[in-house]
Amino acid sequence: LTGGLSIPDPRQREALIKLEISMQTGGQLVLTDAEQRLDSVLFKMKQKEIVGPDCPPAMHFFKARHLIKTSPIFSLLQKMPKGGALHVHDFSMVNVEWLVKNVTYRPHCYMCFTDSQSIRFIFSSQWPKPLPHCSPWILLENLRAKMINTTDLDNSIMGNLTLFTDQDPETVYPSQDVVWDRFEQSFLAVWGLVTYAPVFRDYYYQGLTEFYMDNIMYLELRALLPEIYELDGSTHDTAWTLKTYQEVTRQFTTDHPDFYGARIIFTVHRGVNISTMTGAVEKAMKLQRDFPDIMAGFDLVGREDTGRPLWYFRDALSLPVERGVTLPFFFHAGETDLEGTEVDQNLLDALLFNTSRIGHGFALLRHPVAKDLYRRRDVAAEVCPISNQVLMLVNDLRNHPAAALMSENHPMVISSDDPAMFGTSGLSYDFYEVFVGFGGLRSNVGSLKELATNSIRYSSLTPKQQEEALALWQRRWDRFVSENAF
Amino acid sequence: LTGGLSIPDPRQREALIKLEISMQTGGQLVLTDAEQRLDSVLFKMKQKEIVGPDCPPAMHFFKARHLIKTSPIFSLLQKMPKGGALHVHDFSMVNVEWLVKNVTYRPHCYMCFTDSQSIRFIFSSQWPKPLPHCSPWILLENLRAKMINTTDLDNSIMGNLTLFTDQDPETVYPSQDVVWDRFEQSFLAVWGLVTYAPVFRDYYYQGLTEFYMDNIMYLELRALLPEIYELDGSTHDTAWTLKTYQEVTRQFTTDHPDFYGARIIFTVHRGVNISTMTGAVEKAMKLQRDFPDIMAGFDLVGREDTGRPLWYFRDALSLPVERGVTLPFFFHAGETDLEGTEVDQNLLDALLFNTSRIGHGFALLRHPVAKDLYRRRDVAAEVCPISNQVLMLVNDLRNHPAAALMSENHPMVISSDDPAMFGTSGLSYDFYEVFVGFGGLRSNVGSLKELATNSIRYSSLTPKQQEEALALWQRRWDRFVSENAF
Ligand SMILES: [Zn+2]
Ligand SMILES: [Zn+2]
Repeated sequence: LTGGLSIPDPRQREALIKLEISMQTGGQLVLTDAEQRLDSVLFKMKQKEIVGPDCPPAMHFFKARHLIKTSPIFSLLQKMPKGGALHVHDFSMVNVEWLVKNVTYRPHCYMCFTDSQSIRFIFSSQWPKPLPHCSPWILLENLRAKMINTTDLDNSIMGNLTLFTDQDPETVYPSQDVVWDRFEQSFLAVWGLVTYAPVFRDYYYQGLTEFYMDNIMYLELRALLPEIYELDGSTHDTAWTLKTYQEVTRQFTTDHPDFYGARIIFTVHRGVNISTMTGAVEKAMKLQRDFPDIMAGFDLVGREDTGRPLWYFRDALSLPVERGVTLPFFFHAGETDLEGTEVDQNLLDALLFNTSRIGHGFALLRHPVAKDLYRRRDVAAEVCPISNQVLMLVNDLRNHPAAALMSENHPMVISSDDPAMFGTSGLSYDFYEVFVGFGGLRSNVGSLKELATNSIRYSSLTPKQQEEALALWQRRWDRFVSENAF
Repeated sequence: LTGGLSIPDPRQREALIKLEISMQTGGQLVLTDAEQRLDSVLFKMKQKEIVGPDCPPAMHFFKARHLIKTSPIFSLLQKMPKGGALHVHDFSMVNVEWLVKNVTYRPHCYMCFTDSQSIRFIFSSQWPKPLPHCSPWILLENLRAKMINTTDLDNSIMGNLTLFTDQDPETVYPSQDVVWDRFEQSFLAVWGLVTYAPVFRDYYYQGLTEFYMDNIMYLELRALLPEIYELDGSTHDTAWTLKTYQEVTRQFTTDHPDFYGARIIFTVHRGVNISTMTGAVEKAMKLQRDFPDIMAGFDLVGREDTGRPLWYFRDALSLPVERGVTLPFFFHAGETDLEGTEVDQNLLDALLFNTSRIGHGFALLRHPVAKDLYRRRDVAAEVCPISNQVLMLVNDLRNHPAAALMSENHPMVISSDDPAMFGTSGLSYDFYEVFVGFGGLRSNVGSLKELATNSIRYSSLTPKQQEEALALWQRRWDRFVSENAF
């Protein structure tokens, strides 16, 4: 670049603009003719959608969803083979409508109302024992039999199982504390439904179906692996739960041969004490040894701001290395605004514990040393834009820090965290926010392609499996491009 | 850093944390004992203010102002010598209460109501000619004489001169378009008051006073240099306006010897056509030659998203270099969310036109090539957090992109853009947002010190003047530290 005491040279300007475009995610990819034609189609669509006050990524997703649903870009993104979903939690995979219309209509389903205006469920062959802080149990079958119209009841149940609302989200959730509280309450409401053994299998199968329908071919599921109960109140242990995930995954891939599979990241709540954490890490090591195919690794879950920092659990998290045992970590880190606090060191600590990816990494930009190390070690951030917006880390998604990360091709994948909780499904909504919001007019088919292949490259699959999965993805991608490039 | 197949070493962890802290703005400064004591005081204050749902930088400034006003950190920041204010516009320097209580009470002040529910003013010895799209003129003196209580009238006038409101800002300003429209209307409402010659002088003197009271010692004012009118309707030319700025500045520095001075950046609206812009650049070159002491340079103003990009004016902006004439540029650039559009190239183009600083640079993080060049050329961004929040580029100021810039000591200064419009005064409110919001618990006395000295280092003052100003600042800083370190 010349010193500036000359008139700008248009060719130099053009070169700098091109240089910047080439630095973004996918900027190095050479597009085929068909891909370039698809890119022109998408560019024209974006020019229409990006201007004006109703630019969806600028709005809260709850208000933007109906706009996105009718977007031609979204419809293309739904058809696009997106690779794997690497950051999804076990009990928020399935549209809550399915939970209400299918699960709560099964026999022996009881419900009660908590003091804090939430609901709880249980399936039981006998009348269940009362829960503390909850109304007497009601058998849903009886309740519905007395009603002429059950739509209101079903809608009200549904509203308790998700954060999504048609009301103004800023009014319903005035602060991070409120939205996290409601998040945890909805999670507890779902709990009794999905930890019932027959539902547990069906729920997971249905979850895989929803991701499959959204053209996802692979899943890494963060799972608490709780005790699963039967109608008589008997329970199964963690290994049973993991084995069930394995069986259902096998069944699903048999039924859908173009689905590559799923792996499990065992998760523990970060609110536990040190001895519980130690026990959990020991259990994780055992599961990793006994179920190497399905087990991907270990992570902590729950709100970072109110939970314990990784460093608090350093002895427990050091056990695998001390014992020479492999236990890959996939830590949530940097899902916070609290710069400079202990929790804010999670990003660095996850790295020191050799994490394989970071969940969110929202605070990465404020940590240049950690950011640089993540990049050099090629450890990807699992970016979940809608989750970050709903949980009130960011308002206008065009300002999401990962927009900056994408402009320099920082290692990342896109995921949906808790789709059912946020009123999304699969990955397409999050891809929309990324493509239109993060990328503006600048992101292109190359960006989409790289994000999709990243989800395989940064997965826990072995190199050989990755190759297989990439080949499978490439065939579907080529078909997608040829069918949509005009 | 070791490969990760070992337990994290606490000393290495400590070293990385320290390294990151040392990279932030002010991270290289060695603090005196007194500065360290002041730092502890501030750290303890921050620990209290930063937690909880009422963390002021997370809220809209209009809702947070009353909290900030009572903050002990804010009270320290008010006393702190902050150096210069390098990004402030001519007709939003003075608290609107002064405009109403002082200016509109002067004789011969007429007001009318526009069709778009704004107001206009004029001072005139005769009854003024009617304005298009405005009610008949009312002489304020007559109107007030008829009223028992003029408080409501005065408050209503005040509300028209500023964006600040006690109502819910999200409701009053639902979109960027609405807030910019109201911004421009308020600006037009102020216009007739402040372009009246006697008011013009007093307004500027009062503006300097408000900055001085906030412990600012130097100002670079972006000024439109409009024709100023007298009571008989006669007008003065641009040179008169510039000379008046010079005279009033001299008067003010005579009255306040510890105020270092002020310089003017001549600004033109980016909505004009090419021939008008060419004329403006020519005028700027002439003014720069005739008034080298007071003239700092040239800039374009008005909303970037709806205005013309710098590149559109490339021929006009190339004139100074073509003619071998010095005209420093101080371009607004990157005050936008519209990634990948023509306007979004302003950041790069400002650089190609050799800008001396960037106004805002909000989009810098999404432009890694431009960002890197700015850094290497040491061209500072003038960061105006409250302006960006009120004009709806960012909601939670902890997410402002300059928080990331500050974590890597990117060249920057803090300013307030249009303090009267946003309900602020001087720089202290913006410094509060930066110190508490951008920096979290991590920013410290070093950050504040570097931001203050940056405002002198990146000013348009000559090296010799900068030395003088820095010496003056240092004396005041040392006094401030010794008076507040316990
Ligand atoms: Zn998660
Ligand atoms: Zn400005």
